Amino acid sequence: MARTRGSVGAETEKAIRKAAVELIAKHGFEAMTLRDLAEHVGLQPGSIYRYIATKDQLLVDIMAEHMETLIAAWRAADRPDADPRLRLEGFVDFHIRYHFQRQKEVVIANLELRSLTPDARRACVGLRKTYEGELRGILEAGITQGFFSPTDSGIATNAIISMLTGVCFWYSPKGKLSADDIIAIHKRLVLGGLSGTPRGEAKIIPLAAGRN
Amino acid sequence: MARTRGSVGAETEKAIRKAAVELIAKHGFEAMTLRDLAEHVGLQPGSIYRYIATKDQLLVDIMAEHMETLIAAWRAADRPDADPRLRLEGFVDFHIRYHFQRQKEVVIANLELRSLTPDARRACVGLRKTYEGELRGILEAGITQGFFSPTDSGIATNAIISMLTGVCFWYSPKGKLSADDIIAIHKRLVLGGLSGTPRGEAKIIPLAAGRN
Repeated sequence: MARTRGSVGAETEKAIRKAAVELIAKHGFEAMTLRDLAEHVGLQPGSIYRYIATKDQLLVDIMAEHMETLIAAWRAADRPDADPRLRLEGFVDFHIRYHFQRQKEVVIANLELRSLTPDARRACVGLRKTYEGELRGILEAGITQGFFSPTDSGIATNAIISMLTGVCFWYSPKGKLSADDIIAIHKRLVLGGLSGTPRGEAKIIPLAAGRN
Repeated sequence: MARTRGSVGAETEKAIRKAAVELIAKHGFEAMTLRDLAEHVGLQPGSIYRYIATKDQLLVDIMAEHMETLIAAWRAADRPDADPRLRLEGFVDFHIRYHFQRQKEVVIANLELRSLTPDARRACVGLRKTYEGELRGILEAGITQGFFSPTDSGIATNAIISMLTGVCFWYSPKGKLSADDIIAIHKRLVLGGLSGTPRGEAKIIPLAAGRN
């Protein structure tokens, strides 16, 4: 279980991590064997334990690292004193652009939570809640300041994150729309969805009579 | 491979399908063995082949049936001649309520596409596109009639489906908000996101200067 140290060891660890991300995203965690993984990076099956503790730990490390770098990158991009509408636009832009670069990690973070041990799942869900808390804070600031219609900020946070993360499951850089186009469309959907006249006179579209 | 016919056989097939949905949603398709499945329904391991052709076919059947009943149920609920805003509200209500009743099937339909053989995946993706086409038709009718701001209807369809399906991954009937509350919040997010004055003068919230 002892890890190999030094720069060669670090390079190999990185290569293992990268190959694991590819294999898990493609076939699922359960379907990946450490034998496959060793083969992909040119190691003997037994040697892989010099670089990773267990298969479970490898998944935890991949998911936790993904969430931690995501949170740090967002905090570096955010301007907490800015207008909540600008911050929300910034969040949409950041989230989509960041995730476009890491589609495989997003697939894993969303599909493999159930493969984690209960403790590891709690830790990863905790990191996710921290990230969601950043968006929720923006929504609450916008509601308090009267820029967004009052709504349940927790539900709206989940809804927006689902919408923005969903993009990663179908986006192709070869598609007809650029990342910028897709981001612009999502900004309008998100900002429009929350918009209302100040202090909560919601811009609900009037509907035909006879229906609640 | 011959299937057992008759009502007892049909009951057993139903029990197998139900147990498979539970096991796949909980542990993933790759992790489920037919031996587990047989045990769950009280069959000898070898006997399960009297009811299912292969493990792969079982997954295809679960996913295709889920999508086919979803499409049929929506078409029965839709009122194609109604105002697109009402139809969109109806879609949000239908989609969330229908999926709340079938959270496990939704998890499978979203997480196990990669476990299908290429042909089966194409068939299931085709069914999904048919369903998405229903929403897309509503958005296009609403844009044409000037009720919704012009946007890329394909992207907006994907975004709305992601948002509405995401609910199924965190909703708990024991939560503090009722299904009705959650549906109302999502209706406002979706309708608001698409809203605009007739003929496309979009209600974009004015943002502070100095940013595109």
